[in-house]
Amino acid sequence: MAVYTDVDDDELRRFLAEYDIGEVVSCKGIAEGVENSNYLLRTTVGLFILTLYEKRVAPADLPFFIGLMEHLAAEGLACPTPVKARDGEALRRLCGRPAAVITFLDGMWPRRIQNFHCAGVGRALAQLHQAGRSFPMERPNNLSLAGWRTLFEACRARAHEVRAGLADELAAELDEMERRWPRDLPVGIIHADLFPDNVFFRGEGLSGLIDFYFACTDFLAYDVAICLNAWCFEVDRSFNVTKAKLLLSNYRAVRPISAEELAALPLFARGSALRFLLTRLYDWLNHPAGALVRPKDPLEYLQKLRFHRGVGGPAAYGLA
Amino acid sequence: MAVYTDVDDDELRRFLAEYDIGEVVSCKGIAEGVENSNYLLRTTVGLFILTLYEKRVAPADLPFFIGLMEHLAAEGLACPTPVKARDGEALRRLCGRPAAVITFLDGMWPRRIQNFHCAGVGRALAQLHQAGRSFPMERPNNLSLAGWRTLFEACRARAHEVRAGLADELAAELDEMERRWPRDLPVGIIHADLFPDNVFFRGEGLSGLIDFYFACTDFLAYDVAICLNAWCFEVDRSFNVTKAKLLLSNYRAVRPISAEELAALPLFARGSALRFLLTRLYDWLNHPAGALVRPKDPLEYLQKLRFHRGVGGPAAYGLA
Repeated sequence: MAVYTDVDDDELRRFLAEYDIGEVVSCKGIAEGVENSNYLLRTTVGLFILTLYEKRVAPADLPFFIGLMEHLAAEGLACPTPVKARDGEALRRLCGRPAAVITFLDGMWPRRIQNFHCAGVGRALAQLHQAGRSFPMERPNNLSLAGWRTLFEACRARAHEVRAGLADELAAELDEMERRWPRDLPVGIIHADLFPDNVFFRGEGLSGLIDFYFACTDFLAYDVAICLNAWCFEVDRSFNVTKAKLLLSNYRAVRPISAEELAALPLFARGSALRFLLTRLYDWLNHPAGALVRPKDPLEYLQKLRFHRGVGGPAAYGLA
Repeated sequence: MAVYTDVDDDELRRFLAEYDIGEVVSCKGIAEGVENSNYLLRTTVGLFILTLYEKRVAPADLPFFIGLMEHLAAEGLACPTPVKARDGEALRRLCGRPAAVITFLDGMWPRRIQNFHCAGVGRALAQLHQAGRSFPMERPNNLSLAGWRTLFEACRARAHEVRAGLADELAAELDEMERRWPRDLPVGIIHADLFPDNVFFRGEGLSGLIDFYFACTDFLAYDVAICLNAWCFEVDRSFNVTKAKLLLSNYRAVRPISAEELAALPLFARGSALRFLLTRLYDWLNHPAGALVRPKDPLEYLQKLRFHRGVGGPAAYGLA
């Protein structure tokens, strides 16, 4: 649940006077985005999203995120575009925080994943990877190997509270990841968090991708592996090969996956499962007692991790 | 903070198929309304509010609330109107809950109250009282005298945790209210919760009133007294007579206040301060530890109560 800052009506009016997007008609805090305060802003011209960047987003990263959205939208990817004020700047300040107005994206994110959703997200992910090739900025992935080690050490002593033996299993897994993690596969801009709540659809058509605040520079195939975990497991936690096959084949129709990338997929899928397991474990152990926001179950990702560990090769994902 | 229910996209599509308001374009949970889940719904036709009624609203009261909004809007009051489905029914079900689609109201609620806001709210309150005269349904005010007694007894033993001597002061106040509460003043539909977050403005013009889920049948002048408390105290908790005078004179320009009602205003203002003090005190003592929603300070209303107790007569509110 988001919305931390209450935006004053007078202050908002002065803020919008710097733009060419009409006058405020209404502005309502919306329950989207965990990291930032988001508002649905209606002006005399149209509908926008107003984002106030709260503490969890590093101000130094904002030019990367804003620049990336501008770039991807200019490349034709369906995603929100930051709106520039009259002075040409999209990144501004409101209520003492960095702030941006972003175009409104139609659609809803899917609650029950169907096959066509997986086909759509595969295609869109490949389009994102292609469009990112010409983006000049870089941002290291602070939630890759080194970040996992830090998270693991912060959770190690209390991991048994979640499941007996969890610390040992994670230690072994992390050791293996550090030993076997690839070094020379194709690298580029990845979304790094393309879960269903970040992909909008209207009917069966994908209408756009949102929330680029984990985007960074990393292995493209690792981003594909994140999507296998996020989109291809059923509610009963079984892996749906048909969905994986649709996701991968639609991805490959836009951007070919090399034999080396394919071979690395099971390892990337384990690594990505470990990444979400560790962040969820950290949140689980560190959320304030009685907080309204219930942290997500870390063990969901332990099951996914074990599935990928048992996989013989990329054929398990429905590839010929 | 609201939004308790996650609305499934498929279920929403089926729900809207019963209406003549186009197809879903997007639907976002908004942070408004503490009692219900509210969504900003965009269809191919326009913008609406979708409300799911959660546990705190009694289903038996819903026909009164929906009927009242329909009636007031038909009488020309600026307020949201429930949208009827093709079968003529506005009150329906979605996600296992009672649900209604309501027209979207432009405007923002004022964060810093200025004089023109008080003038506007006085006028609109009187219009609401006049428009309510022809509404045939009744709903007793369960947050009047009897309700205060129940709340007080539930808080009595722990009131000292908030302030030493508070229980005794409240007991004496409640005794006096029970002894002196008027019996034969004009009664009608009152809003009963017309705080700034329930009144929208565009620029200096009032664009409408929202949130009728405390509306009930009670003394009209008591509703005026609630507004004196909600709109005419400054942030430093001093009473602003200019604002009170504007609120009252603009009210009276639409609906005259009788001499008997005027004489009862200080008592009603004390009673309404006691009402908000008691509900806040109850929430303060009973909110879950560590909850994200911080309850409002009950002592703000103790200061308001004491102010009105010290008042010589209605002249203290700027009346000639």
